[in-house]
Formats: sequence, C-alpha cells, structure tokens
Amino acid sequence: MATSWEYRYAQRTKGMQSSVVREILKVTSQPDVISFAGGMPAPELFPIREIEEACVKVLREHGSSALQYSITEGYVPLREFIVEKISRYGIKADVDNVLITTGSQQGMDLVAKVLVDPGDVIIVEAPTFVGALQSWRAYQASFAGVPLDDDGMRVDLLEEKMVETHPKFMYILPNFQNPGGVTLTRERRERVVGLAHQYGVPVLEDDPYGELRFEGDHIEPLVVISASRNGLDPDGYFKGDVIYMSTFSKTVAPGLRMGWVVAPVEVIKRLVQAKQGVDLHTSTFDQMMVYEVVSDGFLDEHVKEIRKMYRQRRDAMLAAMEQHFPSEATWTHPKGGLFLWVTLPEGVDCLDLIQEAVDNKVAFVPGTAFYANGSGHDALRLTFATCSVDMIDEGIKRLGKVMAKRIKQPA
Amino acid sequence: MATSWEYRYAQRTKGMQSSVVREILKVTSQPDVISFAGGMPAPELFPIREIEEACVKVLREHGSSALQYSITEGYVPLREFIVEKISRYGIKADVDNVLITTGSQQGMDLVAKVLVDPGDVIIVEAPTFVGALQSWRAYQASFAGVPLDDDGMRVDLLEEKMVETHPKFMYILPNFQNPGGVTLTRERRERVVGLAHQYGVPVLEDDPYGELRFEGDHIEPLVVISASRNGLDPDGYFKGDVIYMSTFSKTVAPGLRMGWVVAPVEVIKRLVQAKQGVDLHTSTFDQMMVYEVVSDGFLDEHVKEIRKMYRQRRDAMLAAMEQHFPSEATWTHPKGGLFLWVTLPEGVDCLDLIQEAVDNKVAFVPGTAFYANGSGHDALRLTFATCSVDMIDEGIKRLGKVMAKRIKQPA
Repeated sequence: MATSWEYRYAQRTKGMQSSVVREILKVTSQPDVISFAGGMPAPELFPIREIEEACVKVLREHGSSALQYSITEGYVPLREFIVEKISRYGIKADVDNVLITTGSQQGMDLVAKVLVDPGDVIIVEAPTFVGALQSWRAYQASFAGVPLDDDGMRVDLLEEKMVETHPKFMYILPNFQNPGGVTLTRERRERVVGLAHQYGVPVLEDDPYGELRFEGDHIEPLVVISASRNGLDPDGYFKGDVIYMSTFSKTVAPGLRMGWVVAPVEVIKRLVQAKQGVDLHTSTFDQMMVYEVVSDGFLDEHVKEIRKMYRQRRDAMLAAMEQHFPSEATWTHPKGGLFLWVTLPEGVDCLDLIQEAVDNKVAFVPGTAFYANGSGHDALRLTFATCSVDMIDEGIKRLGKVMAKRIKQPA
Repeated sequence: MATSWEYRYAQRTKGMQSSVVREILKVTSQPDVISFAGGMPAPELFPIREIEEACVKVLREHGSSALQYSITEGYVPLREFIVEKISRYGIKADVDNVLITTGSQQGMDLVAKVLVDPGDVIIVEAPTFVGALQSWRAYQASFAGVPLDDDGMRVDLLEEKMVETHPKFMYILPNFQNPGGVTLTRERRERVVGLAHQYGVPVLEDDPYGELRFEGDHIEPLVVISASRNGLDPDGYFKGDVIYMSTFSKTVAPGLRMGWVVAPVEVIKRLVQAKQGVDLHTSTFDQMMVYEVVSDGFLDEHVKEIRKMYRQRRDAMLAAMEQHFPSEATWTHPKGGLFLWVTLPEGVDCLDLIQEAVDNKVAFVPGTAFYANGSGHDALRLTFATCSVDMIDEGIKRLGKVMAKRIKQPA
C-alpha cells in the first residue's frame, strides 16, 4: 500500500510556502482586471526583433556549441560584457569575479546555500523583496527587519539590530527598492559599509533596477564603497564584504532567467560548486543569445527607452493618486524602478482591501507579503511599469474609490 | 579591514566539492586528446535547423509572452507533450503531475530540498551518477551504496542495506546506468518496488537514457510497476512511492537545461514551492522553443537517428576493446545509452592511469568519481557517444597500450 508522503518531507519544508504574489497574480490575470500587482516589466518593450536576430546568429555562427553543456561559471564573452558594464559604476571586477545565474533568484538561492545554516539571522529591509524571503525560508533562516523611510533603510536602527541578532549577512536593495520604491542615500550607504566592516557582516547588494533611474544622480553602489575602503586584492580586483547581484530581467526580458553575481574569487568558487549541484549551468543558448542582444551598444539605447516609458507611467500614477486617493493615504515617490508603496490610515487592512479591489477589477499586492513577520497590513505595493497611462488613471480611480469606502466604513 | 570569508560559510559547504568529471573535462578539452570522459551527447546530432525554425516561430507567434515571467510548473503544452510521451511507457499522469526543471540536475536538487534532512541516508547504486552525489552532499546526506552487476543493482543486498540504514529514499538509474551501462532486469524492478512499499521508502527513478535503447525489449519503469500495485489516486492518475525524472538533454540538446519530474500531485506542489525560491521557473523561451522542436513527431524520428549512431559507436568501442585491451580487463555490454564501465585487474589504479592516458592523448573518467566512499580505483567509465568510429578505434588502441604497460609494471 502506498504510504502518505507527508511524514517524508524535510524539516525545511515547514517554512516553505507558495509566493503570495504569485498566488495573487493567478487571481488577477483575467483580462478585465487592471493589475498593479505583478513585478513584471512592460512586455511591449521586449526586444523581440533583436532576440530573433540573435537566435539565428548564434545558431549559425556557434552551431552545436550553443546547444552543448558548458562551464558552470557562464559564457565568457557575456561575463566580459558584464565586467565592462559594471565598471561604469566603479565596480572593478574581472571575469573570475562574475558568475552567470539562472535569474537573480538563483543568485539568492546560491548565496544562502553557501552562507546560511539553519537558525542563522539575515538582516533585511522591512518591507523587502518577497522572493528573497521565500528563498531563504527554505534554508531555515530567521529574519531581522530594519524599517525603511524615504531615504531607504533606517541605518540609525541597524547597529542595534546587528548587535542583538549576530546576522550572517545583510540583504539590501539600495536603488528603487522592491517594494518600497525608495533609494538608500550616499550617507547611509557609507554607514552600512562601515558597520559591515566593523562587525564582519557581509552585505548582499541586490541591484536589479539600478539602471532604471529617471532622475537625480547615480549613487555609488555599496560594493564600490566597500572596495574603496578595503583596497583591491592581490590580483587587482575588488575585495571586501559585499556580494553584488543584478539581472537582465528588467532590461532585456525576465523569461530568459539571466542574472549574475559579482563577488571575490573565493566566494565565486563556492557559488560555482553550489551551482554545479543545482543546475550545472544556465542555458548555454540563452547566454549566447543575450550576449548577442546586449553587445554592440544596443542595451544602452534600449535602457533609455525603458526609462522614458516607466517615467511617464510613474508620473501618471503619482498624478492619478493625487487626484483619486483619499487624503488619508500616503505614498513614496520613486526616482526609478517599477514600484511604489502606499501606506493606508490606521484601521484599514490591505487584506480586506484586496478582495474588494479585485471585485472592482483592480489589483495590487498587500503589504503583508513583504514582511517576514506578517506585519504590513496598513500598506500595499503598486507597480507602475506594466499598464498604459490610460489604464493607470482608470485603475487608480477604481482603487481610490475602494479605499475611500473602506476608510469611511472599516471592516 | 575586509575579513576572510572562510569562517562565514555554512556547514553544508564542507561536503561540497567541484565535480571531478568537470575538472577532468577541463584538462582533456585540448583538441588532440581523444576524450571518452565527457557525458556529452554527440553534438553533430543536435537539431540546429529545427531549433532555429522553432525560435523564429515562437517569437513570431507568441511574441512577448515567450520572454515574460511564466508559471513555475512549466509551459502547459510542453507538459501535455510529456504526459503523452510517457504514456507510451505506461506512465499514467496528468499535466498536474509534471514539473519542468532546469535540467534534470535541478530535479535532483529539488527532490533533496523537499525530502532530505542533514544526516539522512540515500541508497544509491555503487557506482552511481556523480552529479547526484554532488547535489546531495550539499544537503548533508549520507550515502549507502548497493553494488551493481550486469543485471543492475544487486537487489539481493538491498533489503539488508535498507534495514541497516533507514534510508530517506533510493536513487536508481534503471536503464543503461551512468556510469555502469547496465540495465535493471524486470524481476529486480519488481523486487525494488516491493521493498519500497514494504518499508515505505520512496524511489527516485532517473531515466535520462531510456529512449536510447539499441536492442532488446523495453522494460517497464519502476513508476509503472509501483502504480500497478498501488492503483490510481482518486483523480485517476498515478500514485505510489516513485518519483520519475527524465530530460531532453540526451534527445534534443543538453545546453538548453530542460528536464522534468513526474510525481504525485502533492509532491509536485512541494517541488513547485521549492523551485519558486530557486529560479522562479525555467526559461520561458527555451520551454516554448523545445516544445516547437519536439512536437509534430520530430522527436520520434530524431531519436531513431541518435540510436543508430550511438549503436554504431558502441559496437565500434566494444570491437576495439576486444582487439586492443589487455585480457585482464573486463567491461559491461550496454544495450543503450552513452556509457560503459571497465574493470581493471587488481593493483592497477585508475588515478595513476588517467595521468598516463592524458599524456598519451586519451581520456576517461576514473571510477572513484562515481562512488560516495571513494572506492572504484580498479575501474573507469568510457563514453562511446561522442567520438567518431575512427577516433574510437584510435583512442581505445592508445588506452589499451597504457593499460598493458601499467598491468606489467604496476606503480
């Protein structure tokens, strides 16, 4: 007789759960719902023609080697491209400092695989990226949240939290944070790096949106600030306490699952060992194809288009919120990226609101999804990237009505 | 001052190491070395033209949805194709029983993530697939090896090992085993399934090579034997103690990293949760493209070509071994797949032999790579799939000379 599987599962599965965001996306995928819920880039910007040309070129020029097993570290020309690309931000790296990952979600999985023992504490921004929480719950990590304000993580609360929890690492999204939409200031970055060094706690710097800045000046990444304090390692490349991650998901296309990690060589070696056991390597063909798409200056031009469209949509959303949201609601004003964060007046619960919103054909992600401890009932995340300006106006109007009703008649 | 990363790594990294096979492949990639080392399919068989056509078709017909985020479970038409395909082997499954994985290496990682606690024992064939050992060492698993003979796992030793070690699951490659090249007989499959049920120990059945049978009759997979004992679950689909895994790596192309897991719905749900944290989903584009390649009957025709070429190469290798290998060596006679296994006379160590072989421009994988406990010094794995018939003859001649020398003058 077949036995139940229930008693067979590993301890770590107790912390594992389906992504709340992905569950909501299922509900809101009907075509008549205006969804501000997904974290998806605008599909009308995907470079379909360039990808088709790249596919044909890769297969004709590289033939079978584009389809064969390849090295775990990743396609060398693509890693060289990344080295050149990040050097503009002051990140001094060599090909050996770069690992191609199957999306930056895999970067998160591998970093935890290499660093996290059960019970280890990870310091996160509160709220933080839901996919990070999901990945690390499978490693039986604990989370210590440090609140955000308009200038990013409240670093004035960070040292106390570090002393209290002895974290294994800190996870920080410095630019146009998901879900907060806020950016960590230069002064706060200095402080984070200083504390990282003082306490010997590494930082995982996740920068998927850094290129999508609409206004204001670029701020040096944590990895550069750390390297400038530590100097360079004997090979002339960066060393320090920061692992840097990014992705082509927001600048080329997310369905290709193509991200990368930049770290000291010794850390990359460990991550490579972990990746061998996980998927051997990222699709050889997709790596070569993405390289063909992004090289020759295309990416720079393409990113300008993305910035322009997202900026228009952000402006439209902010304007519509001013017009249609009840005066009791407040929200962040992101200078880039895809997301903004709305805080509701006390007594209104976003989990009640989402039901009513979906009934009124508009969707968002409840704030609770982004907190490790289940708080965030008074908040919600909106994406301005995916909908047209007209749909944004209509959707915000619908959402404003639902909010106003709830504020007058709390559940 | 930057601190060393050494003390930061998780406990599980102690068991992690680079794949011996991949390290050897680095050494043997010079063009003048005849390599029987890699587990790579023959690149001249990759369907490059069909893949190019499929890329263009997918991008023109599906447009941006081929490049967008997609569901973790995998592209529905591809899962439907797999359901139809495996039904020919008697595996009764529904789309909900199938998860697309980023290569079957990811299937191994996810199964362990969901089932294995540190210290859990996994029963493996001895020798077994090196990638499985590598993946599961990262979960701090222990291994209990059951020896192989020409009829596959020695099931007469299995029950004792199960009673002794209380394993979490058994990992079995029933067809043309990697590295052994042997196939588990029907009688032994019955016995494995019987013991699995008796002791409540699930089986992970890994079947990457099952379609590549050159001769003899197909033998029912363990998953079918298990289901026929257990009956079907209330939805009419298979239930039981077997998780079945396979891949397009050996029939389409390995560089695309496209595998699948078939399991009871409750197990698939857990694997999906794990995969969300690991890489969200497998490349949407590659899934759609592979679907276009394999549908419309192409795969069946293509597999016939692969079988024909590999059969010729197996025959060539067996003939060359008869002619050139010293009489003291013995080897398996695989009826399919990519690999065969050579056993050397006592006193000859494959780790000494590999150095001398590479000096003589021929390569193999030392047997030790395939044992969890480091035994296998008297054995080695050869791949007949990758080299032309002429190269096989020349390579086996070189290897025979090196062996003969070692047998006469042991190190």
